[in-house]
Amino acid sequence: MKVTVINTGGTFNKRYNPIKGQLEVPADNIALDKIIASCHNVEFEIKNIVSKDSLDMIDSDREAICEAIKSSENDKVIIVHGTDTVHLTSELIKQRRINKKIVFTGAMVPMSIDEVEATMNFSQALGFLSADVEDGTYIAMHGVVVDCSKLVKNRELGQFLIQE
Amino acid sequence: MKVTVINTGGTFNKRYNPIKGQLEVPADNIALDKIIASCHNVEFEIKNIVSKDSLDMIDSDREAICEAIKSSENDKVIIVHGTDTVHLTSELIKQRRINKKIVFTGAMVPMSIDEVEATMNFSQALGFLSADVEDGTYIAMHGVVVDCSKLVKNRELGQFLIQE
Amino acid sequence: MKVTVINTGGTFNKRYNPIKGQLEVPADNIALDKIIASCHNVEFEIKNIVSKDSLDMIDSDREAICEAIKSSENDKVIIVHGTDTVHLTSELIKQRRINKKIVFTGAMVPMSIDEVEATMNFSQALGFLSADVEDGTYIAMHGVVVDCSKLVKNRELGQFLIQE
Amino acid sequence: MKVTVINTGGTFNKRYNPIKGQLEVPADNIALDKIIASCHNVEFEIKNIVSKDSLDMIDSDREAICEAIKSSENDKVIIVHGTDTVHLTSELIKQRRINKKIVFTGAMVPMSIDEVEATMNFSQALGFLSADVEDGTYIAMHGVVVDCSKLVKNRELGQFLIQE
Repeated sequence: MKVTVINTGGTFNKRYNPIKGQLEVPADNIALDKIIASCHNVEFEIKNIVSKDSLDMIDSDREAICEAIKSSENDKVIIVHGTDTVHLTSELIKQRRINKKIVFTGAMVPMSIDEVEATMNFSQALGFLSADVEDGTYIAMHGVVVDCSKLVKNRELGQFLIQE
Repeated sequence: MKVTVINTGGTFNKRYNPIKGQLEVPADNIALDKIIASCHNVEFEIKNIVSKDSLDMIDSDREAICEAIKSSENDKVIIVHGTDTVHLTSELIKQRRINKKIVFTGAMVPMSIDEVEATMNFSQALGFLSADVEDGTYIAMHGVVVDCSKLVKNRELGQFLIQE
Repeated sequence: MKVTVINTGGTFNKRYNPIKGQLEVPADNIALDKIIASCHNVEFEIKNIVSKDSLDMIDSDREAICEAIKSSENDKVIIVHGTDTVHLTSELIKQRRINKKIVFTGAMVPMSIDEVEATMNFSQALGFLSADVEDGTYIAMHGVVVDCSKLVKNRELGQFLIQE
Repeated sequence: MKVTVINTGGTFNKRYNPIKGQLEVPADNIALDKIIASCHNVEFEIKNIVSKDSLDMIDSDREAICEAIKSSENDKVIIVHGTDTVHLTSELIKQRRINKKIVFTGAMVPMSIDEVEATMNFSQALGFLSADVEDGTYIAMHGVVVDCSKLVKNRELGQFLIQE
């Protein structure tokens, strides 16, 4: 399987900087690399762009993500994104009607703090793309992969939940 | 989404027993529970049977797994299994032509030692079942989910690889 | 051995709050409990007070720490403290000339992110108190336990280093 | 502070070999290096010898340990040793009346599985050697550092306990 991963930052990637005493969104793929190391049957193209907390994303960032998807080598694309505005970016991408299988994912807790949740969300995207799915814009979080409009962040619970 | 998980043991579940100084296959779901805790959109039925290193499985164990699949509440079934004989059990189940979506998974390193690989394999199965897949017997390991006959354990590398 | 632990907060205790998307200093002893679980030969008295990032500590907090030391059941006392102002608090305590063996410790990275550094610093304090040491105010960080005036935080490196 | 570490193997160092499906005692210092990385104030001499489960140690292994202690650059020596026969080796070393401060340590659970217990035991040895202790043969396990004859492995509990 061939998959393009567009890593845009967000909680998924955050790491603690002991000098500053803060969590930072790094511009590298260290969080991702730990998962990918076990994907022996996937050929990845990885693009690292934006590298922001998604609350700080501006229109030009979303356009950059759109361009990265359009120019990706593969028709299977996973986008690692912050959870706070993933609904905005995914809705924008959906409207562009790109003929690819696009799956947004991310994490509520940084991979550097809890390897389970981040690995789960990303790996669900991979498993979904292993199936013969139609072109579309999806989101993979907390147990399921569905159309990006159907899974919504509940900010009180800190969980993405299917919108009934 | 509703999913039945049949946990049969294997490396995925192994834990260190400090009294005996050995890794053991426990008869509980502690390894699984850590992943499931983040699956807020899945209703699980969990069956814990056999609880063996798969090298120790005998015919009656495989029949028990077959019965557990047939009697599962859901048509989406994930089977956590040891990697050494998963090809035997999955082939047997495939021949039984059960009208369900059955995905075998497992791990090369215990969840208690490396949370990434085990979580990845299990979560790929979940992502695959989120898609509208046909009835069949599949295996989810190391980046992909495919028909159980197509992914084979390379014992020198310790990796499941697509059989060309 | 009998030891009083006064847990005042700091980086050592910080945990990620996925709802707020931030690290917080909790008012509990979860970070400490994980270490103490293996201390089968120590009888602990544990006091949880202040629970602050040490940059936010005020004079009354330091007086509260002083009172907690004076009223501790044991003459062996470990104080878990934030690294940014541990030099101020330890100097104050030293001036009070309390007839106890008082060891300050803490961590540059939260126990919830890196279990090694926090466990190391705390455990060095325990090992030091196992020896027949004189009353005094010490600090246990990054490999050694010395008089609290002799180990200084290098803010560029993020390391406590012996002051030559 | 200058410390010689003699790493002889044991549970402390064990790592999972996914090809063999077993825990092995490696002949490297990976477990140790993770702790030492935070010891910014210690100059280490590290010797890696024997590399065995301590149940497999023979007389010549113990003589090799004795020679390594005698020829160590520093008078502060930590010996990482398996827990099953640490009482035999430490008793032998004690009888040799070497004029150094010798601290045996180890772990009930491999550092590769649980970083807390192994880090705690080793770091207590470091903290103890930071104090002005007399020459002797000590053991650092589970909360305390005492003369090697006074802390005994309880094989039912999997704990080293002070012998009353």
